Amino acid sequence: MTSLPVFLFIGIFVSQTGARYTANWTSLDARPLPSWYDEAKLGIFIHWGVFSVPGFDSEWFWWHWQGQQPPDPKCVSFMSKNYPPGFSYPEFAPEFHAQFFNPEEWADIFKASGARYVVLTAKHHEGFTNWGSPHSWNWNSVDTGPHRDLVGDLGQAVRNRSLHYGLYNSLYEWFNPLYLNDKKNGFKTQEFVLHKLLPELYNMVVRYRPEVIWSDGDWEAPDTYWNSTEFLAWLYNDSPVKDTVVTNDRWGAGCACKHGGYYNCDDKYTPGQLPKHKWEKCTSVDTFSWGYRRNMRLNELMDLPTIIADLVRTIAMGGNYLLNVGPTPDGMIPAVFEERLRGVGAWMQINGEAIYASKPWRVQFENTTIPVWYTSKGSSVYAIVTTKPSKSTVQLLEPKTSVTTQVTLLGNAKPLSWSPLGPGGGLTILLPELPFVPGSVGCVVLKVNPLRTEAWVRAGDTAARN
Amino acid sequence: MTSLPVFLFIGIFVSQTGARYTANWTSLDARPLPSWYDEAKLGIFIHWGVFSVPGFDSEWFWWHWQGQQPPDPKCVSFMSKNYPPGFSYPEFAPEFHAQFFNPEEWADIFKASGARYVVLTAKHHEGFTNWGSPHSWNWNSVDTGPHRDLVGDLGQAVRNRSLHYGLYNSLYEWFNPLYLNDKKNGFKTQEFVLHKLLPELYNMVVRYRPEVIWSDGDWEAPDTYWNSTEFLAWLYNDSPVKDTVVTNDRWGAGCACKHGGYYNCDDKYTPGQLPKHKWEKCTSVDTFSWGYRRNMRLNELMDLPTIIADLVRTIAMGGNYLLNVGPTPDGMIPAVFEERLRGVGAWMQINGEAIYASKPWRVQFENTTIPVWYTSKGSSVYAIVTTKPSKSTVQLLEPKTSVTTQVTLLGNAKPLSWSPLGPGGGLTILLPELPFVPGSVGCVVLKVNPLRTEAWVRAGDTAARN
Amino acid sequence: MTSLPVFLFIGIFVSQTGARYTANWTSLDARPLPSWYDEAKLGIFIHWGVFSVPGFDSEWFWWHWQGQQPPDPKCVSFMSKNYPPGFSYPEFAPEFHAQFFNPEEWADIFKASGARYVVLTAKHHEGFTNWGSPHSWNWNSVDTGPHRDLVGDLGQAVRNRSLHYGLYNSLYEWFNPLYLNDKKNGFKTQEFVLHKLLPELYNMVVRYRPEVIWSDGDWEAPDTYWNSTEFLAWLYNDSPVKDTVVTNDRWGAGCACKHGGYYNCDDKYTPGQLPKHKWEKCTSVDTFSWGYRRNMRLNELMDLPTIIADLVRTIAMGGNYLLNVGPTPDGMIPAVFEERLRGVGAWMQINGEAIYASKPWRVQFENTTIPVWYTSKGSSVYAIVTTKPSKSTVQLLEPKTSVTTQVTLLGNAKPLSWSPLGPGGGLTILLPELPFVPGSVGCVVLKVNPLRTEAWVRAGDTAARN
Amino acid sequence: MTSLPVFLFIGIFVSQTGARYTANWTSLDARPLPSWYDEAKLGIFIHWGVFSVPGFDSEWFWWHWQGQQPPDPKCVSFMSKNYPPGFSYPEFAPEFHAQFFNPEEWADIFKASGARYVVLTAKHHEGFTNWGSPHSWNWNSVDTGPHRDLVGDLGQAVRNRSLHYGLYNSLYEWFNPLYLNDKKNGFKTQEFVLHKLLPELYNMVVRYRPEVIWSDGDWEAPDTYWNSTEFLAWLYNDSPVKDTVVTNDRWGAGCACKHGGYYNCDDKYTPGQLPKHKWEKCTSVDTFSWGYRRNMRLNELMDLPTIIADLVRTIAMGGNYLLNVGPTPDGMIPAVFEERLRGVGAWMQINGEAIYASKPWRVQFENTTIPVWYTSKGSSVYAIVTTKPSKSTVQLLEPKTSVTTQVTLLGNAKPLSWSPLGPGGGLTILLPELPFVPGSVGCVVLKVNPLRTEAWVRAGDTAARN
Repeated sequence: MTSLPVFLFIGIFVSQTGARYTANWTSLDARPLPSWYDEAKLGIFIHWGVFSVPGFDSEWFWWHWQGQQPPDPKCVSFMSKNYPPGFSYPEFAPEFHAQFFNPEEWADIFKASGARYVVLTAKHHEGFTNWGSPHSWNWNSVDTGPHRDLVGDLGQAVRNRSLHYGLYNSLYEWFNPLYLNDKKNGFKTQEFVLHKLLPELYNMVVRYRPEVIWSDGDWEAPDTYWNSTEFLAWLYNDSPVKDTVVTNDRWGAGCACKHGGYYNCDDKYTPGQLPKHKWEKCTSVDTFSWGYRRNMRLNELMDLPTIIADLVRTIAMGGNYLLNVGPTPDGMIPAVFEERLRGVGAWMQINGEAIYASKPWRVQFENTTIPVWYTSKGSSVYAIVTTKPSKSTVQLLEPKTSVTTQVTLLGNAKPLSWSPLGPGGGLTILLPELPFVPGSVGCVVLKVNPLRTEAWVRAGDTAARN
Repeated sequence: MTSLPVFLFIGIFVSQTGARYTANWTSLDARPLPSWYDEAKLGIFIHWGVFSVPGFDSEWFWWHWQGQQPPDPKCVSFMSKNYPPGFSYPEFAPEFHAQFFNPEEWADIFKASGARYVVLTAKHHEGFTNWGSPHSWNWNSVDTGPHRDLVGDLGQAVRNRSLHYGLYNSLYEWFNPLYLNDKKNGFKTQEFVLHKLLPELYNMVVRYRPEVIWSDGDWEAPDTYWNSTEFLAWLYNDSPVKDTVVTNDRWGAGCACKHGGYYNCDDKYTPGQLPKHKWEKCTSVDTFSWGYRRNMRLNELMDLPTIIADLVRTIAMGGNYLLNVGPTPDGMIPAVFEERLRGVGAWMQINGEAIYASKPWRVQFENTTIPVWYTSKGSSVYAIVTTKPSKSTVQLLEPKTSVTTQVTLLGNAKPLSWSPLGPGGGLTILLPELPFVPGSVGCVVLKVNPLRTEAWVRAGDTAARN
Repeated sequence: MTSLPVFLFIGIFVSQTGARYTANWTSLDARPLPSWYDEAKLGIFIHWGVFSVPGFDSEWFWWHWQGQQPPDPKCVSFMSKNYPPGFSYPEFAPEFHAQFFNPEEWADIFKASGARYVVLTAKHHEGFTNWGSPHSWNWNSVDTGPHRDLVGDLGQAVRNRSLHYGLYNSLYEWFNPLYLNDKKNGFKTQEFVLHKLLPELYNMVVRYRPEVIWSDGDWEAPDTYWNSTEFLAWLYNDSPVKDTVVTNDRWGAGCACKHGGYYNCDDKYTPGQLPKHKWEKCTSVDTFSWGYRRNMRLNELMDLPTIIADLVRTIAMGGNYLLNVGPTPDGMIPAVFEERLRGVGAWMQINGEAIYASKPWRVQFENTTIPVWYTSKGSSVYAIVTTKPSKSTVQLLEPKTSVTTQVTLLGNAKPLSWSPLGPGGGLTILLPELPFVPGSVGCVVLKVNPLRTEAWVRAGDTAARN
Repeated sequence: MTSLPVFLFIGIFVSQTGARYTANWTSLDARPLPSWYDEAKLGIFIHWGVFSVPGFDSEWFWWHWQGQQPPDPKCVSFMSKNYPPGFSYPEFAPEFHAQFFNPEEWADIFKASGARYVVLTAKHHEGFTNWGSPHSWNWNSVDTGPHRDLVGDLGQAVRNRSLHYGLYNSLYEWFNPLYLNDKKNGFKTQEFVLHKLLPELYNMVVRYRPEVIWSDGDWEAPDTYWNSTEFLAWLYNDSPVKDTVVTNDRWGAGCACKHGGYYNCDDKYTPGQLPKHKWEKCTSVDTFSWGYRRNMRLNELMDLPTIIADLVRTIAMGGNYLLNVGPTPDGMIPAVFEERLRGVGAWMQINGEAIYASKPWRVQFENTTIPVWYTSKGSSVYAIVTTKPSKSTVQLLEPKTSVTTQVTLLGNAKPLSWSPLGPGGGLTILLPELPFVPGSVGCVVLKVNPLRTEAWVRAGDTAARN
């Protein structure tokens, strides 16, 4: 008897006609990325789990406290000062109450942020699942703590608002004894993968039909240990989300930035030049942690202008931007995070045209009179100014205008005065008095449209870029 | 044997020569307010106590749950859903851990807010003292919960930064059986006052030497029940803070807005015209609560522009502004509150000249081209513009200029162009391009100085106001 | 205003005609002991309180841990191994659940033990009251922990079974800051006594009408500090239990074995010869503790034969026997204690005639063929044999028989054969086969009745003893 | 890859020469029972687990509360009165502290009881393992609660006293989702067995080398689901305990009383006539529960005479007697249980000769003058009298004496007078005065030795029984 049949059973769906993928990277890497993902641009990442209960250090608290050698003295000291000797991490779980968790309110905030997708930690490295996984008995959010299907409940609210819903899943589990045994065996055995990881993962996909599988925790073992290509072949061929699901690149040591769906490369990855492959920058409002920290202080958080600038740069460079917040164990999104998300949304309300469904332009950045990031859509180019112009005119060297070209400031109906710099391209724009909006982040978008016909080739097109 | 001698003992200080106050309102009300208070203008209020542990509803949670008839169904439901039957309020106390409480960090934030004084709840209506009161055994922050002298520790840090330190003290205690018995007796008996309230209050003053005594919870009984005038006579004549202490007006039913030191009148009191007596507006960033609420949402909080506008109006009307934040039971000031306080401080950094030690002007408000609040200092008048000017010029009718008058925008070195409106007064000011400060609250101050000589009479002066 | 009137109010009862006691020992010590007490002989003592929660060391745990210098390393180690740093004693109170407390079941057990009175700790040295004392707010069994009037509920059940009900009350409270302050003042001040101890004690008497006041914790201060004689004068003259209440001798340093009602002298006091004054031996099934210990072991407990022998000796010496058990914080009397109490009751069922309302005899003890303790009642003497006779005959030297004398074994209907030893007295008794009762304690009573007329003078009578 | 190899790896031991068992009942049932077991006669059973924390109802609490339909209202009410809504069973685990657990003390008590083997619940139906099972991550005594290898620590102490050590293991786990899924599938799938049960069970045997495997929880599924015969074949052929291990008969629906090692048949099974197969009666001092109950009362417990009588009957009928006690979650054996165990030991000290290594006799019981149970050893027969003889002589009809026969009372050196009843057998014995031992259980043994030569055939021998 093989080890997965029961759960696989319910996981086999009628394949559409057309090519099937085979369980190797050449085949899998060739799959086109479903289009919704690149158009969405902005997602919200949520790290929530038992780690939210101590709310100290970061979601890596357990590892820093009891895994790494030597342990982090701050974590050791935190425990020895505040808990009885011998208190163990699983004993935090009953305090994960989530009593204020209102998925409708969360989804309202995410919607208001302008995000188009949401990714929740279904299971982080601690192994605790935020849903009632049969393979994680008594170590999941239904059996203990919240007594609730967090993954399912949030998914419903998110989807009711036409947002895409993705799930983060850690392959490894720091302290799972089956994993540790495989590791001790040099990953020659797969007890953990066959008895725990894969049955659970198949089950999760079938139950919740995530449109993003944000894989993580892959780096200690090769993809052959994780059976990654087999899983992805199933995911792409036979799973209930085979047509819409996207996934990332964390499927085994050496996979990052090389195999899978879009690339995350490293956390908070910030490429220096336009990547050739679709990528995503994940980053966190709390610069010290992805999970909630009870003792976070203001200067440890990104402020809104920093977030907007980071978002703009990421989009200009062809990435998606996945912005993380850590809810409390009580189930609240801390007000300071809510404020950031709504601030991003207010900006997107005016400037989203330059972001959603945009493409990187021929040039991503110039710095003539002022630093400018470019995005493009059809015949338009968007010059995004993230810092305050010191003069009332701005020169842009790269856009090539024609007589029909208009320049506007997004959010302002009235076209701006401009003049061409020379026959080769470029223009000088007369700025209006910039809007005096209390609390504004001071990042404005100049739309130039249409570009000269031959000029609206976008980055990545095979045609010459103008 | 009388009932207070032991603690009074240590509470008697050598009286200075000069007039002594007698224990009646005529005498006590005649005491001049120590000058530091009116100059300080801005204070921070902190509601912290056992109520921070449930962190639900407000600091009145206990009363709403078990005191008032009928109880608040939201509070009843919160308890029945989240706690075992019979769980009682005192059982929250062990969860008041304050493990992250760092008074230096708090005081840094308060200092950065521009506040000049800080008022902490030494004891709220729940009766729990944030110091080791011998009259509140096992119901104070040293015997249980934080195991720490919160009042003392914060006081030291606050004073190290040259801020004044005040203490809030509730006269009544909702559920204290001694109080309830006196109440049942129509306040003909004073068991509570003589055995609990006063010994504790004298002790508190002697131990911590607060410069503000923010009295509260007075309204159910007359000041004769509380022995208020005797206490105040001691406070003004013989206490260690007799020369510097200020107090408010909550000393018995009917006292508010009538007797005591400065007037609070109601919570969040907002007078319609310039009050004759020094007053203070206390208000809270969280519009629903003074104490921490675990489930607060962003739209329930004042944003920074609202706070600044409220502050400006209060100062223009001769008040002090006491802005409240509710720390967590863990001892943190939530980041969103920290952000508000630092935002106020950033504004005060530029515009504090119009606030600190200012006086209300002859006119507090005009609305010619735009709403303007006035403050004054010496020969200067400050016109504070809390909303965005729609034009590049502003007309002010009330200031009477002379040829030597200069107009400046606080924070800008360069004088502005202006012209007189007519011989009777008034002027038109040409605004500069207003500074494009990301995150700015958009409230600017126009300083007009000097006024025509006869014109700088301030509000409350006996001389005619110009 | 004096400090006690409110509670005294309800505490003044119409005095009966007849002599009133004055507040000095000469007068108070002259009060006759209400007769029920000496007749009752056997009482049950119950130590229950917050100390039952740690259930470690003894009911003195708090003192051993944090009071005495140096502290008991076992207690310090217990806390540091099992609780977070800084955990304080009051934080045990919420764990005092008493959820299984069924006063009817307790009272059934006490009744079955043969006891005629029950004494519960209303307040031990920790200061926690097992009733809703208004002077011990949030440190009593109604406000926290059991959320129940333990004193009242047990009292009702006990009295429904015609048992007398007494209350233990500690005068001092180890850590009460008012007490500590008086102590620091060399007991020249009485804050604690006037504000806490006495109002509470008067209230307790009026509310619960205890027939025993088992005073304790007196030894650090003179009775003049405690106002003991004033209290006792009120108790004997004006309290609702003035006619029936008995009290002990712990009313101030130097009072034990000298003043008050009956004498306890020391805990577990065992006099070498017949005391002149009515006394009581209090002792505990758990030889290490009066309060519940979670880690008690069998060899630390008195077994039933030991208890019976101790009871017999105590009664023979004119004492009452107050046998202690410590209930769990859950509200159960541990089964091993229940077994002891029911075992005593089974013995009393057969042999109680020799105990209840008995008087010490002329001789308390002899050891001719076997050790024998004597009690008497009217013309009968009871020879109580606590160890197994090695022969089938027993000689008693002291009883003086006549021709009408019969000898019986209590529990056996049939008279035994006996013969006089000589004209001066004494007899030889032929024992029956002693009853083969599984689990029997092997302590039997030989009743000799009637004695020769002149011989039935009891101890303490003025007439010559024969 | 098959599913068990990793753990099986370490579980294969060099087989001895000689017959190997095959995985079918015919072969397995033919295995001779290792001799130590029948000689041991008396064992101690220990039910300890998370169920000890609620300590209510019984070790079946979880099932009665949340499994069976309808649930037990007492259990539902207990939870709703004492815990917050939604509290789940796994949340009891952190309260399983075992802080007083001293395996040396436990083993001393077991040794003193006269038991020769000890069986601990390694895992009850709740699925929680009392050792760090890698297949029960975060649901075992090392990861949470005790943070200790209870199975290992007790085993060492028990073996140091030359007691045999066995482990109870539940096959099914009420709420394990893998099990529930197999069950839903009509036990056509074996996810639970292959991924959880068997890897864990093999591991347990290899780690702890139990000499008894006390299997339970088999009844819902056939042995083919459990893979019982494969497991037993491995256990008997290749496990580290293959030569000494005994096991019982709970290996699948229909196995009880039919297959396996010795037979338990039902809990507390009491056969009416001599069984043909070796059997064991398991029973519990607490007649209501095997696990600790916080609210047990004395009349719900077996007293010592009852236990001795039950033991005697069981031995006479060829059984072993496995007497259960339930330790507290703190790690103590309640004193009342300790008392029972030491009481059994005191009796065994005198009478063990009639028990240990005895054989059932030709006749197990007669009731001529008094009820008598027989055991035998070699040429001796033991007549065990569990109730008080009413006369001083006892007639026994069944023993056939000879001129060399002596009759003694165990514990008494001196032979008793006796006379034969007739030539066919039988005798009349003159009892001595039975010993007056305080607390004695009143169960005595008359040894008759030697029997007439042809008469000492024991039960089960092929020869004719005399």
